[in-house]
Amino acid sequence: MSRYDTVVSNGRVVLPGLEAPAEVALGIRDGRIVAIAEDIADGDADELVDAAGLAVLPGAVDSHFHIGIYRPVEEDAASETESSLVGGATSVISYFRTGSHYLNKTGLYREILPEVLGKAGGRAYTDYGFHIAPMTTSQLDEIDWMAGEAGMPSFKYYMFYKGLNLAASSTDAAAYTMSDSYDLGHLFAMMEKIAEADARYGDRGRVSLSIHCESAELIKLFIERVRDLGLPPLETYSKARPPLSERLSIHEAGVLASEARVRVNLLHLSSADSVRAVREVRRLYPELDIRAETTLHHLCLTYDMLEGQGLGGKVNPPIRTREDVDALWQAVLDGTIQWVASDHACCLEELKRDELWPAQPGFGGTALIYPVLISEGHLRRGLTLAQVARLVSSNPAQAYGLYPAKGAIAVGSDADLALLDLEREQVVSRELLHSAQDHTPFRGVKVKGWPRLTMLRGRVVFRDGEVQGPPSGEFLKRPLSGRRQAVARA
Amino acid sequence: MSRYDTVVSNGRVVLPGLEAPAEVALGIRDGRIVAIAEDIADGDADELVDAAGLAVLPGAVDSHFHIGIYRPVEEDAASETESSLVGGATSVISYFRTGSHYLNKTGLYREILPEVLGKAGGRAYTDYGFHIAPMTTSQLDEIDWMAGEAGMPSFKYYMFYKGLNLAASSTDAAAYTMSDSYDLGHLFAMMEKIAEADARYGDRGRVSLSIHCESAELIKLFIERVRDLGLPPLETYSKARPPLSERLSIHEAGVLASEARVRVNLLHLSSADSVRAVREVRRLYPELDIRAETTLHHLCLTYDMLEGQGLGGKVNPPIRTREDVDALWQAVLDGTIQWVASDHACCLEELKRDELWPAQPGFGGTALIYPVLISEGHLRRGLTLAQVARLVSSNPAQAYGLYPAKGAIAVGSDADLALLDLEREQVVSRELLHSAQDHTPFRGVKVKGWPRLTMLRGRVVFRDGEVQGPPSGEFLKRPLSGRRQAVARA
Amino acid sequence: MSRYDTVVSNGRVVLPGLEAPAEVALGIRDGRIVAIAEDIADGDADELVDAAGLAVLPGAVDSHFHIGIYRPVEEDAASETESSLVGGATSVISYFRTGSHYLNKTGLYREILPEVLGKAGGRAYTDYGFHIAPMTTSQLDEIDWMAGEAGMPSFKYYMFYKGLNLAASSTDAAAYTMSDSYDLGHLFAMMEKIAEADARYGDRGRVSLSIHCESAELIKLFIERVRDLGLPPLETYSKARPPLSERLSIHEAGVLASEARVRVNLLHLSSADSVRAVREVRRLYPELDIRAETTLHHLCLTYDMLEGQGLGGKVNPPIRTREDVDALWQAVLDGTIQWVASDHACCLEELKRDELWPAQPGFGGTALIYPVLISEGHLRRGLTLAQVARLVSSNPAQAYGLYPAKGAIAVGSDADLALLDLEREQVVSRELLHSAQDHTPFRGVKVKGWPRLTMLRGRVVFRDGEVQGPPSGEFLKRPLSGRRQAVARA
Amino acid sequence: MSRYDTVVSNGRVVLPGLEAPAEVALGIRDGRIVAIAEDIADGDADELVDAAGLAVLPGAVDSHFHIGIYRPVEEDAASETESSLVGGATSVISYFRTGSHYLNKTGLYREILPEVLGKAGGRAYTDYGFHIAPMTTSQLDEIDWMAGEAGMPSFKYYMFYKGLNLAASSTDAAAYTMSDSYDLGHLFAMMEKIAEADARYGDRGRVSLSIHCESAELIKLFIERVRDLGLPPLETYSKARPPLSERLSIHEAGVLASEARVRVNLLHLSSADSVRAVREVRRLYPELDIRAETTLHHLCLTYDMLEGQGLGGKVNPPIRTREDVDALWQAVLDGTIQWVASDHACCLEELKRDELWPAQPGFGGTALIYPVLISEGHLRRGLTLAQVARLVSSNPAQAYGLYPAKGAIAVGSDADLALLDLEREQVVSRELLHSAQDHTPFRGVKVKGWPRLTMLRGRVVFRDGEVQGPPSGEFLKRPLSGRRQAVARA
Repeated sequence: MSRYDTVVSNGRVVLPGLEAPAEVALGIRDGRIVAIAEDIADGDADELVDAAGLAVLPGAVDSHFHIGIYRPVEEDAASETESSLVGGATSVISYFRTGSHYLNKTGLYREILPEVLGKAGGRAYTDYGFHIAPMTTSQLDEIDWMAGEAGMPSFKYYMFYKGLNLAASSTDAAAYTMSDSYDLGHLFAMMEKIAEADARYGDRGRVSLSIHCESAELIKLFIERVRDLGLPPLETYSKARPPLSERLSIHEAGVLASEARVRVNLLHLSSADSVRAVREVRRLYPELDIRAETTLHHLCLTYDMLEGQGLGGKVNPPIRTREDVDALWQAVLDGTIQWVASDHACCLEELKRDELWPAQPGFGGTALIYPVLISEGHLRRGLTLAQVARLVSSNPAQAYGLYPAKGAIAVGSDADLALLDLEREQVVSRELLHSAQDHTPFRGVKVKGWPRLTMLRGRVVFRDGEVQGPPSGEFLKRPLSGRRQAVARA
Repeated sequence: MSRYDTVVSNGRVVLPGLEAPAEVALGIRDGRIVAIAEDIADGDADELVDAAGLAVLPGAVDSHFHIGIYRPVEEDAASETESSLVGGATSVISYFRTGSHYLNKTGLYREILPEVLGKAGGRAYTDYGFHIAPMTTSQLDEIDWMAGEAGMPSFKYYMFYKGLNLAASSTDAAAYTMSDSYDLGHLFAMMEKIAEADARYGDRGRVSLSIHCESAELIKLFIERVRDLGLPPLETYSKARPPLSERLSIHEAGVLASEARVRVNLLHLSSADSVRAVREVRRLYPELDIRAETTLHHLCLTYDMLEGQGLGGKVNPPIRTREDVDALWQAVLDGTIQWVASDHACCLEELKRDELWPAQPGFGGTALIYPVLISEGHLRRGLTLAQVARLVSSNPAQAYGLYPAKGAIAVGSDADLALLDLEREQVVSRELLHSAQDHTPFRGVKVKGWPRLTMLRGRVVFRDGEVQGPPSGEFLKRPLSGRRQAVARA
Repeated sequence: MSRYDTVVSNGRVVLPGLEAPAEVALGIRDGRIVAIAEDIADGDADELVDAAGLAVLPGAVDSHFHIGIYRPVEEDAASETESSLVGGATSVISYFRTGSHYLNKTGLYREILPEVLGKAGGRAYTDYGFHIAPMTTSQLDEIDWMAGEAGMPSFKYYMFYKGLNLAASSTDAAAYTMSDSYDLGHLFAMMEKIAEADARYGDRGRVSLSIHCESAELIKLFIERVRDLGLPPLETYSKARPPLSERLSIHEAGVLASEARVRVNLLHLSSADSVRAVREVRRLYPELDIRAETTLHHLCLTYDMLEGQGLGGKVNPPIRTREDVDALWQAVLDGTIQWVASDHACCLEELKRDELWPAQPGFGGTALIYPVLISEGHLRRGLTLAQVARLVSSNPAQAYGLYPAKGAIAVGSDADLALLDLEREQVVSRELLHSAQDHTPFRGVKVKGWPRLTMLRGRVVFRDGEVQGPPSGEFLKRPLSGRRQAVARA
Repeated sequence: MSRYDTVVSNGRVVLPGLEAPAEVALGIRDGRIVAIAEDIADGDADELVDAAGLAVLPGAVDSHFHIGIYRPVEEDAASETESSLVGGATSVISYFRTGSHYLNKTGLYREILPEVLGKAGGRAYTDYGFHIAPMTTSQLDEIDWMAGEAGMPSFKYYMFYKGLNLAASSTDAAAYTMSDSYDLGHLFAMMEKIAEADARYGDRGRVSLSIHCESAELIKLFIERVRDLGLPPLETYSKARPPLSERLSIHEAGVLASEARVRVNLLHLSSADSVRAVREVRRLYPELDIRAETTLHHLCLTYDMLEGQGLGGKVNPPIRTREDVDALWQAVLDGTIQWVASDHACCLEELKRDELWPAQPGFGGTALIYPVLISEGHLRRGLTLAQVARLVSSNPAQAYGLYPAKGAIAVGSDADLALLDLEREQVVSRELLHSAQDHTPFRGVKVKGWPRLTMLRGRVVFRDGEVQGPPSGEFLKRPLSGRRQAVARA
């Protein structure tokens, strides 16, 4: 019997706590990394993976995902996590809520979540977890259970649902959310519950609230202002949901979080103004744990780039300007932003069509998670590979209770790996992305630094553009650390 | 012919720019001060007012008033400005809005304001002006006219009307405000209009927005929490509209004002938290003109003091704790707060009765404006008389376009004077206040420092507890400075 | 007998607390203003001064002056205060210290100050007071006496004397200051003594410490760096005493003052960096009373303007760049700087000559105090006349215990007036300045807004370019308010 | 041939980037860690170290040390690094300067450093490097060489030498430092040189300036004040060098560093005031790299504890109060302070004796580096073992160019290990410390958490209280990373 099921050798490996990649071999057994060594003899391995010329990073943790938002959970769980493998992501954490879209119903999560888990089970190509949005007063009472037992200790509030549906095409918010008090009072009550859960369970892993920071009341005003200006549609949409709306919401969230003393994640910052606001609330409430996220598309696209390409790029918050992109990268570089995610939502062309307001927002991007960070971050702006790994893997894993089972190449961690070829350049096309989505706003963008191979818990699941084998993703019952460590010690 | 119609002599006079009172005589002609001198010969005056032993301060400008909110405008205009004379106030600026209460209707202000002015005309004992609350989108377009022509260059927004009526007993806000988009979008659009008006007319006098900072969404949550706790009613009410609600609203107002670059007045701060928030927004937006107000009752009363005295003290924002009172005085002393007003609203016992939630909020206090500041501020906490005069007279007059015709004892200014006896102590009773209100939450409070005489534009209108002569108040078409200066030069 | 010795009528008078000038007449008797009125009958006055077409401002208080620094006290006291009248200044406060220059000796101030007062007595054309610099440990024990009895409740520390003489041509600082521990320890001990004196006497008038903020240790370094670069001499000098040196010293002063809780005046800010530092220390120590001064020359001159004009413009801190001038004006406009003074030191050409390092620093400017503020501040940058009056008269008078006897046109105040012709433009020449100084770095500068008439305690002392009558200045035993008020009431 | 020279197994190992210790085995070959694995077969090792029940941390990097300050370099290099092994330190970085003490001479470092290296060579029990203090202008020109070639890219400035010798018993500073311009000008020039060196060599490893922040000018004042008060000697000494002195110096350093843009390390913070000042300068200059250190004794001792125990505890800055100790721990916990060192200086009783002022400052403590952090930090205040490892090992190693060869348990790193028994408690005595110092102010302190075994580059050098084998320490030519990585790859 060999010592290891698999050995990955000859790569430049990004290890926790070290800025420079190390030339080490990884010994893998039973899906976990069990040895890191300067060299491992060929004979010690059943299977050899030669990473010569490649950078070996922990599998990305795409922590902002939407499985089943516009299509059946079963279908998205399969096709969209397959797309994740293309970009080197081996875990996704998907937002789920009751109300319109998703399962189009409301009720208690104790009843609904088993249904969701049932639908997703056995279909995903990556490991997967869920963040949960308590939409109703009754669901607030389930927070303790979700954090403490159900393995979903991260929650969400959508600040702009207060008066709008997702597409901003209707103001019958109550019908949309299937809730009648979805407002700042609901948010504050939620924060208190989450803070209580963190006090109770936080020693095992952070319990936190993620917030979509946009203001319905401002958006309604600005929609009317820009509706008939005749600007290109995505510019119209950006101006209809202006950065001011993010800035306002971030300050509202800051005041309430400082009172409730809850840990928060400010999602998908899209603008210079939102970055400013994050710095302001951190300075106002230095005792708070405030983390900030941006997305691949906000780091990569502008509405000018997408002019003439239809409504594929409609998303909340909107794609903005070059100045905003630059401000976001600056915030990534100086540590204002902790992680980057895709906010992946498979949204078919038939949901977009030709009219701005009814078009559904969102699109996929998970297949680009490492390539965009390498191309725009590492190669163009000087991020180290270690920084890249923290931004898309270690930091979200730590924030959401997955670390170090996920997010780290360490002895005892899951053998989730992305083997990146920093020289490989490809122009993005929808075929490349392996998603069910039949278009992509990233089309035509030249990106350098693609995974040659993606490994999930020791198994090669993607190699040279092709998925390998059947789906093997498992549900991530968080916090993971305890369970995996127990395994490691057994 | 004498040189002066009236001479006020032998008093200790508080003059602009001087901290110590001066022993000067004032020569008055045609309603204005035309001479300030060390001494004026008796023969130079038709009428002599001997102010020996008295402090002579500019008539108070009670800049937060509600004429006609619960009773006909005609009645309040008479009885409640009579009450003002008792406290040394010679000008009031009353808030007016369409919707429920007041005239119980909506429409354009171009049509409604003449009606209001007609009803008030000839009845008031003090000079009087109006702040206007644009409640509907159509009224936003009247801001330029109101600021530039109608003489009402100060506006108001009620942040808590977004989902509540005034008494917080109903959530049918649209019916209450008679508006369907009374929210932060409306506020922002209003701010832009006011900032434009200030750019156009501001060289003649400040154009500003006053904001009632409480959050409907939080109040709805907290009402449910405290409703059945069995606490005393005014403590219940304070906890139902907690300081957090003010803090949130102040930050919302700050973000929007910083974007619109509008001058704002944050009204009736009631709590330590609201003071903190004012300091925070000033630090965040140092370029903004942010002024802060508190009220007599928030400086003087606590809900503990009022326990067992019914619902007379219900008011928005609520009466709070001793710690809040102390924080407000600290803010007055260190300059965080610029002025003090009464927020006078004549609210009869029959509107209060026995049930907390339906009881109408508000009560009168204008008769105490100088007495409370002298008693609690000057005598107890060491404010100079000059500070007192700035807090209730010069500062609101400057903020609202009345200075120096009002708010100053200066050559050319209106001869509006309060002659205070700093030794006179009285226990507050409703009779003392000369208001139509049939109760008072200040009942039993011992106050020292009452006007012996109040003079309006050169005429003695109140002396030794009795009103003198018929009502002689005039409408204050603001900014005043231009008109009065023109008169002075003619 | 007429009611008034003198009446000033028809002018536009800047009164305390009013932004717009008022068209009032001033009645003067026994040297004080005893009446301010819309009009005063001609027959009421022995002497009429017609101020038609002129702005009437309180006589300037030139609060940074150096009588007797390079010439005998007797001579400077006469010739240099004559120069003050030209610019509308009626009071000067001169810095005095033991050590080199001045009387060239050391000892106790109880013995030396009578000598100084004796030499100055009867010679000055303006009223005059003294700030005192305690140079030795023994003199620290005289602070209580100087503040409480001798009428000199303002003190000075020179941060750059620690290792340099005044001209920066020698590092034998001890010989220069005639002190052996003139360092930050001495400064801190002085601060504590002054804070104690303020606690004891401050209710009568502020007791404060003025600080010359430059760092000897940095200057020594930079002198060596720039000495041989061949730059023009005044540019060399600016770079030899760089803004960094001010910034460092201001922060040192801030730390020590925050510990001693002493009131401080940061003198003659010269640079953008010094302005930044003042803002920083105010933010660090919000509880401190920190006031800031700049000078006429730092607001008016650049070293580029003076290139080729010799060493007349050598001064500490140095004349700097256009960017610095602009930053100083910005600080004046936004309130960062409280007052402007001349830092007048009569320094003859023979003390300047041709060599940069031995040339003595300083020059005169008092004759320009109102003209520069009117020309550069009011006419060019939009300062109101009321702001101008505060900057050169009211604010320094308040800071140094003269207000409202000086610094205000008010009933009871000294009748010290500057009647300015805002249309009168002159090119500066040394003859115009009426100083003993035989050159001026302001030569050739075009200035608009000169006094037509200067009045000191009711007497016309300067009119149409000519001094009127013999010197009549008196010693200002501070705080003045008590004494003058007593007189006023008698 | 076995795979590994040595295997350390069964321990709980603190690995970079992981908060929880891992149960892994370490395979060591040629002095470096070459494998980290869940288990390593016994047969794979020549020598087995059983770490069962022990915590395995990276050898401490005691980054503030004074070899040869009071005794010959040869002697200290041996005896005092032997003491380091007792506490689990495997690297020390010693401060060196010219002037009094050390070699008692001045000159160029190009000549002196070879002498120092020669004296230390072959004698030390730990690896050792040097920080260098440029004392003279000529030495400033050696900074580039020292940083770029000589392997000493960290420098020092002593702010209090400006006017004092080390013991504060003399003010002939020039004789003491053998320099004639050792002041803030010298500091600023040094900062510029170091910033230049960092720009040139910083990509290989940080080039920085360490600063001893105390102010000679204040100390001189306070010595006079407390000299004759009759307080206990160490309380006298603390008051003679008050926290204000640190606060002032930190602000001076902040201003200059912000101008020079140099990376700084603020050494041995001793007081609540110094912590406050560090937070202030970080807020003032957010763009600066400012790191802060404290010492074992400032975290552990108070002058009250040492009363009656003589002058052994005299040190600069002084031992302070319980409030200061608590503030320092708070600063360690919240991240204000980055690392902890011993400031070890072997100072024999004969240099202390009975008189406070001539007594030499300093004493040893390196033997307590892990035990104090475990006892007071981990066990008493809840620091994780990972935090402890960062504070005494990873963070100083990163700051000073040693990481990850030192400061990390990682494949490729030196096999420098401390195997700690968290249950082992001992009362400190001088015998326990293995130092030449014949007393210790820590005497009698009960400490829990001692190394059972210390390993230097794969060799057991200390076990169960006894040193093992001859000295094997090597000079640390920094930055190490390059060299070690080269070895690792070869």
